[in-house]
Amino acid sequence: MTPPWTLARRAARLNPSVIRDLLKCSERPEILSLAGGLPAPETFAVEPMRAAFDHVLREAPLAALQYAASEGHGPLREQVAAALRGRGIAEACASRVLITTGSQQGLDLVARVLLDPGSTLAVETPTYLGALQAFSPCEPRFVGLASDGQGARPQALDALAAATPDLRAAYLQPNFQNPSGRLMTAERRAAIVAVAQARGVPLIEDDPYGELWFDAPPPAPLAALWPAGTLLLGSFSKVLAPGLRLGWLLAPAPLYPKLLQAKQAADLHSPGLNQRVVSALLDDGLLERHLPAVRERYRGQAEAMDAALRRHLPPGTDWQRPAGGMFFWLRLPAGLDAAALLPSALAAGVAYVPGSAFHADGSGAATLRLSFVTLSPERIAEAVARLGAVLMAAMTAMAASPTASPAAVS
Amino acid sequence: MTPPWTLARRAARLNPSVIRDLLKCSERPEILSLAGGLPAPETFAVEPMRAAFDHVLREAPLAALQYAASEGHGPLREQVAAALRGRGIAEACASRVLITTGSQQGLDLVARVLLDPGSTLAVETPTYLGALQAFSPCEPRFVGLASDGQGARPQALDALAAATPDLRAAYLQPNFQNPSGRLMTAERRAAIVAVAQARGVPLIEDDPYGELWFDAPPPAPLAALWPAGTLLLGSFSKVLAPGLRLGWLLAPAPLYPKLLQAKQAADLHSPGLNQRVVSALLDDGLLERHLPAVRERYRGQAEAMDAALRRHLPPGTDWQRPAGGMFFWLRLPAGLDAAALLPSALAAGVAYVPGSAFHADGSGAATLRLSFVTLSPERIAEAVARLGAVLMAAMTAMAASPTASPAAVS
Repeated sequence: MTPPWTLARRAARLNPSVIRDLLKCSERPEILSLAGGLPAPETFAVEPMRAAFDHVLREAPLAALQYAASEGHGPLREQVAAALRGRGIAEACASRVLITTGSQQGLDLVARVLLDPGSTLAVETPTYLGALQAFSPCEPRFVGLASDGQGARPQALDALAAATPDLRAAYLQPNFQNPSGRLMTAERRAAIVAVAQARGVPLIEDDPYGELWFDAPPPAPLAALWPAGTLLLGSFSKVLAPGLRLGWLLAPAPLYPKLLQAKQAADLHSPGLNQRVVSALLDDGLLERHLPAVRERYRGQAEAMDAALRRHLPPGTDWQRPAGGMFFWLRLPAGLDAAALLPSALAAGVAYVPGSAFHADGSGAATLRLSFVTLSPERIAEAVARLGAVLMAAMTAMAASPTASPAAVS
Repeated sequence: MTPPWTLARRAARLNPSVIRDLLKCSERPEILSLAGGLPAPETFAVEPMRAAFDHVLREAPLAALQYAASEGHGPLREQVAAALRGRGIAEACASRVLITTGSQQGLDLVARVLLDPGSTLAVETPTYLGALQAFSPCEPRFVGLASDGQGARPQALDALAAATPDLRAAYLQPNFQNPSGRLMTAERRAAIVAVAQARGVPLIEDDPYGELWFDAPPPAPLAALWPAGTLLLGSFSKVLAPGLRLGWLLAPAPLYPKLLQAKQAADLHSPGLNQRVVSALLDDGLLERHLPAVRERYRGQAEAMDAALRRHLPPGTDWQRPAGGMFFWLRLPAGLDAAALLPSALAAGVAYVPGSAFHADGSGAATLRLSFVTLSPERIAEAVARLGAVLMAAMTAMAASPTASPAAVS
C-alpha cells in the first residue's frame, strides 16, 4: 500500500466480486447474459411506484426527508411482521423487525454481531456468494456442509457441530437457493431445526426468493419452527425493485438491540422516503395484485430454459428444474471446467457464473449458475443454444485430446 | 446472551447512542429540543424533489429501479468531482468518488479498511459522536488530540505520531465541527497537513457542514493540500435532505478499490433512484438557488441563539459564535455537570446533548452542545431562557451548598 496508508488486516478479505466483474463484461450488447441475478425490469411496478412517491412527497414530505429512526418506518415494520405471522411465525412482531438497506446489509449486520475472526460459520454447498462477501470482512472460517437437492444435510450439520466448539451459526437459504435453485422440503426443515436445536447452533435463514414460487408457496420458514434460534432475513428487491435498497430482518429478542446498534453505526437508517413508499404500496395491496404476474412470467421463463437445456446441452449435463426463484444450477459432464470455459462462452456471446465462486472451499469447478429471469424466453433459447455449442465443442476437443485444457478450446 | 447465541467480541462496542436515546425523550411536545442535529425541514426543497422523482420515474424508471454499480451513479460521481475541483482539489475525478448511503456509511467503510483492533486513531477534542460510533466496531484505540478554538493542535498530532507506532490516521472535521462549531483557519490547515505529511499520518477529513457558511466559504479542504494523504467525506444530508441517505467520499487511488469492495459487502450500492434524483437536482442548479436561503436562515437562527445566550446564561458560561454549521458549544461555569443537569433541563422543557459524549476519554463534563437549526428564532429564545433558568438554579444551589451534586437540584 502506498504510504502513508496502512490497511486493516480485514481489508485483505475485501476482494472484487467475480459476479460484479462479470456483469461489467457481460454488458456488451452482443452478449446474452444468463449471469446476473437481476429481476426482470418488466416486473417493476413503475406506475404505482411513481404515484406512491408523488403521494408521500405531497402528504408527508418533511417526515419522509428528515432523519428517521434506525429501526425503520413503524408502519412498514408492522406490515413485515404481519406478513411473517401469515407465513407461520406466530411470534413475529414489529419490535423485532429491523429495516435494512437491502438484504445485503442484513447479512453484514448479522456478521458484525455474530462473527469473530477465526470463529466458524457453516454454509451450504454451494452457498450464496454475496453472503460470503458480506461475512468475509469479519474473518470467519467458512465450512461448507455436505448438501443434496434439498440443501444442507442434517447429518453434516450434526457432525460439524459435534466437532466444532466455536460454531457460531449455520447460514441457509431454504427457498429456491442462490445459486442452486433448490427448495428445502418441510421434512428437511424439521430435521435441520432438530439438529440445530439439539446442538445449540443458531440459524441464519436468508429468504430473498420465497415469494417467487411457481405452483405452490414454500413450506413454513425455519423461523416458524425455532423462533428463538433463527434470524430471518428478507428483501423487497425481488418483489418490488432492487433500486429501492430495502430489506428487513426479524431477530430474536436478545439479538435485536445489538443489530440495531450495528445498523446505527453502519448508516444511521435506511432511506425514509423509500420506506414510506413501500409501506404505501403494501397498504394498497400492490403485492397481491402484482406477484401473480411476476410468478407467471418467471415460470414461463423457467420452462423456456428447461426446454432449451434439454434441447441444446450435451449428454451428461445435469440439472434440476427449480420450483421458483431465479436460477438453474448445472453440473457439466466430467472433465469440463466452467471457469475455464467462460472466455469461450463470452466469445460465443453468452455469459454465466462459474459455480466455484459459490463454494466456500473453491470446489465446484464443473458447476455453473444460469439466471432465467432477465431475458425473454426467445433470448433464453438463443443463449442456451450458444452455451450448448460451447460445451459441445469443448467435449469434442476433450475427446480428441483428453489432456488439453478446455480453456484452450474453440 | 440467551442460548444459542454467542456474540462477536466487537458487539460489546455496539452500544446505544446517547443522542438517539435523547432524541426519543425530547420528542415529547412540551420539550424544546436543542439536542438533535436535524436540519430545518423548512429547508427541504420539496417541490423540486417531487418533480425530480417524477421526472426520473418517467424518463429512466427501469435503470433507476434496477441493481446498479457499487461505485454509484456515474453522472453524480462526475458532479461531486467537479464540485470538489471547484473547491481547490485539482486532482478530484469521478473515478475516485464513491457514493455512500449517507456520510455515516462513509465513516463505516473507512473504519473497515483502515482500523484494526488495538490500532490507534487520533481524534479531535471534542469529536463527532457518530464517528466514534461508526469506528468503534473495528475496535481501535481513540486518542483525543489537545484542541483549541480552531481544532486539533499540530503539536499534539506531532507528539502523538512520534510516540505511537500504530497510528492509523487522524479524524478531523475542519468546517463548523460537530459538536464545537469551530472552523479551522487556512493557517491551521497548513500546519496540520505539514505535521501529518512529515510524520506520515493519513487524514480522514469529514465535511458534512462545509456548505453551511454564513459570511464566507471555509478555506480549501485538507484534501486540496495533501490529496494523496487525505480521505475526504461529504454528504447531501445537510444541503438537500437526510432522508435520501446519500453521501460520498473521495479516496486516494490506492485506497479506492478496497473501499469499493467494502461498500459492495455492506449494501451492494446506494439507492439508484435517489442518486438519479440528486443528480437531476444538481444538474438543474438547485443548490446554487437553494443554498443562499439556507445559509441566511441558519445565520438568523445562530444570531438568535447568540443573543439569547448573552441574555439568559449565567456569568462564567463560555461559547464562541460559530461562523457556519449547526451548533453552539458551551462551557459551563466551574462545578456544573451537563449530564447531571440534563434531567432538570428536560423537566424544565429544554433538551441538549451533554458534551462528555463527544470526548473519546469521557471528559468534558462541563460542556454541552446546542443545535440552532431546528427551532425558529422565537423558540430558540424560549429554549435558551429555560436552559438559563436551570443553570442559574444549579449555581444558586451550588453556592448555598457547595458539596451538593447539581443533579439533586431543582
